[in-house]
Amino acid sequence: MYAARRSRLRERCEAGGSDAALVSGAANVRYLSGGAPAGAVLLLGPDRDVLVCTTDPFADATGASRPADDLGVLVLSPEGDPAVAGAGRAAEAGACSLAVEEHHLTVARHRAVGSVVPRVRLSDLGTAVEQQRIVKDDEEISSLRIAAEIADQALGELLESILVGRTERHLALELERRLIDHGAQGAAFPTSVGAGPNSGLAGHVPTDRRVEEGDFLSVCLGADYRGYRSEIARTFVIGSSPADWQIELYEQVFAAQRAGREALQPGAAYRDVDRAARLVLEAAGHGERVGPRIGHGVGLENDEDPRLAPSAMGKLDACVPVTVDPGVHLPGRGGVRIDDTLVVRPEADGGPELLTITTKELLAL
Amino acid sequence: MYAARRSRLRERCEAGGSDAALVSGAANVRYLSGGAPAGAVLLLGPDRDVLVCTTDPFADATGASRPADDLGVLVLSPEGDPAVAGAGRAAEAGACSLAVEEHHLTVARHRAVGSVVPRVRLSDLGTAVEQQRIVKDDEEISSLRIAAEIADQALGELLESILVGRTERHLALELERRLIDHGAQGAAFPTSVGAGPNSGLAGHVPTDRRVEEGDFLSVCLGADYRGYRSEIARTFVIGSSPADWQIELYEQVFAAQRAGREALQPGAAYRDVDRAARLVLEAAGHGERVGPRIGHGVGLENDEDPRLAPSAMGKLDACVPVTVDPGVHLPGRGGVRIDDTLVVRPEADGGPELLTITTKELLAL
Repeated sequence: MYAARRSRLRERCEAGGSDAALVSGAANVRYLSGGAPAGAVLLLGPDRDVLVCTTDPFADATGASRPADDLGVLVLSPEGDPAVAGAGRAAEAGACSLAVEEHHLTVARHRAVGSVVPRVRLSDLGTAVEQQRIVKDDEEISSLRIAAEIADQALGELLESILVGRTERHLALELERRLIDHGAQGAAFPTSVGAGPNSGLAGHVPTDRRVEEGDFLSVCLGADYRGYRSEIARTFVIGSSPADWQIELYEQVFAAQRAGREALQPGAAYRDVDRAARLVLEAAGHGERVGPRIGHGVGLENDEDPRLAPSAMGKLDACVPVTVDPGVHLPGRGGVRIDDTLVVRPEADGGPELLTITTKELLAL
Repeated sequence: MYAARRSRLRERCEAGGSDAALVSGAANVRYLSGGAPAGAVLLLGPDRDVLVCTTDPFADATGASRPADDLGVLVLSPEGDPAVAGAGRAAEAGACSLAVEEHHLTVARHRAVGSVVPRVRLSDLGTAVEQQRIVKDDEEISSLRIAAEIADQALGELLESILVGRTERHLALELERRLIDHGAQGAAFPTSVGAGPNSGLAGHVPTDRRVEEGDFLSVCLGADYRGYRSEIARTFVIGSSPADWQIELYEQVFAAQRAGREALQPGAAYRDVDRAARLVLEAAGHGERVGPRIGHGVGLENDEDPRLAPSAMGKLDACVPVTVDPGVHLPGRGGVRIDDTLVVRPEADGGPELLTITTKELLAL
């Protein structure tokens, strides 16, 4: 599997005139080799592919699996620079042109690489690996499915416990503990819990605000399962019955999120998915309060291509997992965020596959 | 305070021939401005200093404090590039030469910066800010002192609970919860708990291994308090009485750690501190098992300059907080790691100030 991914990338490199590539983005390295300890780089060709790192690349705890192929592994001393060593290896093996990831490599490391291989032409690999990662294979989707299931379980358990009086921070920590209880390697991203005026804020960092009667409570979490990261957000009302403004706002965001989900199909433009959800919120008078995009790809990174945004170029393919996550926040009052992870599927296969199945009814807890 | 730090950096830039600087390393930005949301950059001069970011830089939850000085703040749309916008601002203000952090900026962003300000000469700021951060002021040291106290409290509470039968993962999560209970913004770095054969491993990622009678249990944690990060590691024995090999190994690592601590004084070469601890372990036959360095600076980053390592160049100053953290791991059996955070002080002031005060006796739990 990893070898097949590297073959595809090699073809692309050769078409671009490079006989070797140095991949340094962490998720890209993991995608192509199965392991990615901090700072590791992957040298692709010109002869053998080599993972260059400073620590054992296949420690069990990260969920990385040792590739069953002919990938070489070169472990440097802890003070070594894998990019420099990888470039040196490429030059020894006769590379004439080495494509590097200029959007990951710092200027200083790029210069260090250039100075050890003065006769090798350095070119830009660009986002070739990121683009290759957009469409997922069955194994990747099944990891994401498990990651989504774990987040559903953690969230479901939280909802059964008493919430009033507890702080955002503690609820976030408890969710992260439950993710791990259910088999996650960790949280896919920092869990966000927002109560009352903090509800509905994207990426809100949990505070010591306690949950009170009448609050909106919004929760956004995800599990990392074998490196693959799910994402889900739900918003609840605390107490017996929601206020009218809460019901109205919830229905607006829910309608926008549904419109976004329904727009997911192979061939749909990224910007049209964004537009489907955004129009609903604009019609409700929340145009100014909607974030810059309505969803994004998920996989080895929590936030990867594609972006579902007004200015995004490109069209969805089948087997692309994305989030649809609109939200509206009313300053001082709070807000609503509803977020699912789905996989784009053709109509004939039943349309988009919903991975995060926690109910989206407005629950009063 | 932030303005004074920026003045010092400005003097250094001007001496290097640059009339403006673009600081993009996250901890560097925070050091100079008090706030550092993801992706923010700080433009230093040529006229006014400006923090350029895509989200509100002074959200309470991160513990960042709004500077009470004349720093300008420019908030871009979420899709904006702060480095590009900052460089544009520098050019408008008449900058001729802009120093950038080539070890933080990627090649792609550097090029984007260069293309928006074609008439400005780009130079390298190097690690000027990192060097300026090495010696801490009283306020920084008092944040570190609190961060160390919080980690001591979290660790102390864990030791009073039942450990046998619990997994490394759960112990690590519980420690992180307790850090937050005691007022930390979060863990300073991922908490490491290693039981039995995993004990003594640097940076061990907690697994589902359960704590058993007779195990060594090593724990490494730290608190983030207002951005400042403490570090402590201790190793315990589980059960009534340690085995002979455990007592022997513990005494060897303890002696090495003490030798390292005692070598901390203003004017001591970084490498001599490393050497003091390393010699003890070499004499005990563990030379091959000692890591590449015996300690490192702490502050806004968990692992910052100086490095206390055989090849490190430089000498300690007063008011430099460092760790002394030797460890030895015997494959298949386990090992010992003992780690303190201390501040270098002159002999006349009583020598190094120990911030992490949890006992280093070998406790049987």
